[in-house]
Amino acid sequence: MTFEVLILGSGAALPTSFRNPSSQYINCNNRHILIDCAEGTQHQLRKHGVLFQKIEHILISHLHGDHFFGLVGLLSTMSLLGRKKKICIYCPEGLEKIIQLQLEVGHAKLDFEVIYIFHQFKEHKIVFEDKQIQIETFPLRHRIPTAGFVIREKDKEFRILGDEFKKAQLSLTAIPFFKAGKDFEDESGEKFSYLDYTLPPKKSRSYAYCSDTNYYEKIIPFIQGVTCLYHEATFLDIMKKRAKQTFHTTALEAATIAQKAEVQKLIIGHLSRYTSDKEHLEEAMSIFPNTRVAHDGMLLLI
Amino acid sequence: MTFEVLILGSGAALPTSFRNPSSQYINCNNRHILIDCAEGTQHQLRKHGVLFQKIEHILISHLHGDHFFGLVGLLSTMSLLGRKKKICIYCPEGLEKIIQLQLEVGHAKLDFEVIYIFHQFKEHKIVFEDKQIQIETFPLRHRIPTAGFVIREKDKEFRILGDEFKKAQLSLTAIPFFKAGKDFEDESGEKFSYLDYTLPPKKSRSYAYCSDTNYYEKIIPFIQGVTCLYHEATFLDIMKKRAKQTFHTTALEAATIAQKAEVQKLIIGHLSRYTSDKEHLEEAMSIFPNTRVAHDGMLLLI
Repeated sequence: MTFEVLILGSGAALPTSFRNPSSQYINCNNRHILIDCAEGTQHQLRKHGVLFQKIEHILISHLHGDHFFGLVGLLSTMSLLGRKKKICIYCPEGLEKIIQLQLEVGHAKLDFEVIYIFHQFKEHKIVFEDKQIQIETFPLRHRIPTAGFVIREKDKEFRILGDEFKKAQLSLTAIPFFKAGKDFEDESGEKFSYLDYTLPPKKSRSYAYCSDTNYYEKIIPFIQGVTCLYHEATFLDIMKKRAKQTFHTTALEAATIAQKAEVQKLIIGHLSRYTSDKEHLEEAMSIFPNTRVAHDGMLLLI
Repeated sequence: MTFEVLILGSGAALPTSFRNPSSQYINCNNRHILIDCAEGTQHQLRKHGVLFQKIEHILISHLHGDHFFGLVGLLSTMSLLGRKKKICIYCPEGLEKIIQLQLEVGHAKLDFEVIYIFHQFKEHKIVFEDKQIQIETFPLRHRIPTAGFVIREKDKEFRILGDEFKKAQLSLTAIPFFKAGKDFEDESGEKFSYLDYTLPPKKSRSYAYCSDTNYYEKIIPFIQGVTCLYHEATFLDIMKKRAKQTFHTTALEAATIAQKAEVQKLIIGHLSRYTSDKEHLEEAMSIFPNTRVAHDGMLLLI
């Protein structure tokens, strides 16, 4: 199954010729999710050929403009292009009013339902789940209330060993037991261990998004062991003070979080325009070697 | 003196790969003006190398999103980049509240003064003037209150013929009289006609912007004889009904306005994504031959 993240905007507050501010599109087992929506997100979606009417969940981390100024435009475009399917927006309280006001002044309305689910910012929470995936939010530490996100595949099933199963001529009613990792007892009372007829489930993959935030160890339990962590690294270690003051993170700190949370891979983004990718990368890799720098258009296979 | 218009967005409501929605940057005798500010305008300004901190006047025609969704982002960027100089925004009432709300939710503020001058929509009005230029607004006819704009050079002075002036050994006090097209009488009572010592003033140039609007003949007196008219031409004549219903104009109608107002040149824009430039151009040129189709990045020398 597909689990891909397309980076639409990898920069900090100011758009540059190479980096748009924050936005990412995720396809996780055909659940289509947008994280953050800076100005120009709809342009980026179009540029990269994303069928954006498929998006069903929009996660807005916080209400700084470089994370949401593109939302009203995207919603308007979806409506103008005929969308009727509802959309869920997970966001801080207050966003609904902003969107409404901008539409109302133009006597405009959206032809589809928008469901706003407001962040609590107090604890780790599953805000959406179905058979395939779950979406979790947890608090980050920034100048204003800000949420981090984890998108996680649900635990997968044990995989039936077809040949062994056939040979044993077992009843098909054993299958749900084995898939769930449970032994099966047939009508005569004979027991069959799932271990003999299955391979362990494939590992569930997970993707965590932490932007914007200070260095904040309290997030570690929520992102522990994720397949891929996107963490902001706005500054370098030499600008540590400024990072702290502005509630951002240095590349060194992002890598420390990745290391302590034992994630598999780290992507750093939300980079300041005044320093080079190379500097950020080298600094992060000194702590956590499996690091890459995000760039607009980057496709991550989770 | 420079009088240039840079088209930043020439499309209708939906951004495409080739056309951003409405926005234009004007340099008229070193007065720097932005007309409309769709999402992505700051990206377009950057792409085309405009020193956008020079902008002192922003004219917003109406409050449909494709004409103002980029404003808050542009103002934020101006502030982040250190702007201290005030800016004047000529716009419909209601825009101030939208901008304020979007900043407030992020605990953000602009480090420069924004002066809002609200459109009256009732009559032709000069909303700004200095020695060099004047900016005029007038009502268009659209689904919601909408203003058109004229940017006009002030009447220029008569040009002194240096050689003739020297030969006559006239007092320098004659100059302001001649520049103003008035005769001069010296202390002895002798009269000197300005006609003998001057060339007529260079013609003052003017640029009119009419988007979005129905075909609306009442605007003709306000744009009479302008050097260049930008008029929306969202539809073709075969979609005349739809143009009327949606309060837009066809290429044929835009050309008719240009012809009746005896403008020197017509630029058509705000084109629908479903028809070709060629079709719009041919239709307009059948009525008004000196027509061009706007495209993003087009530089008009007025």
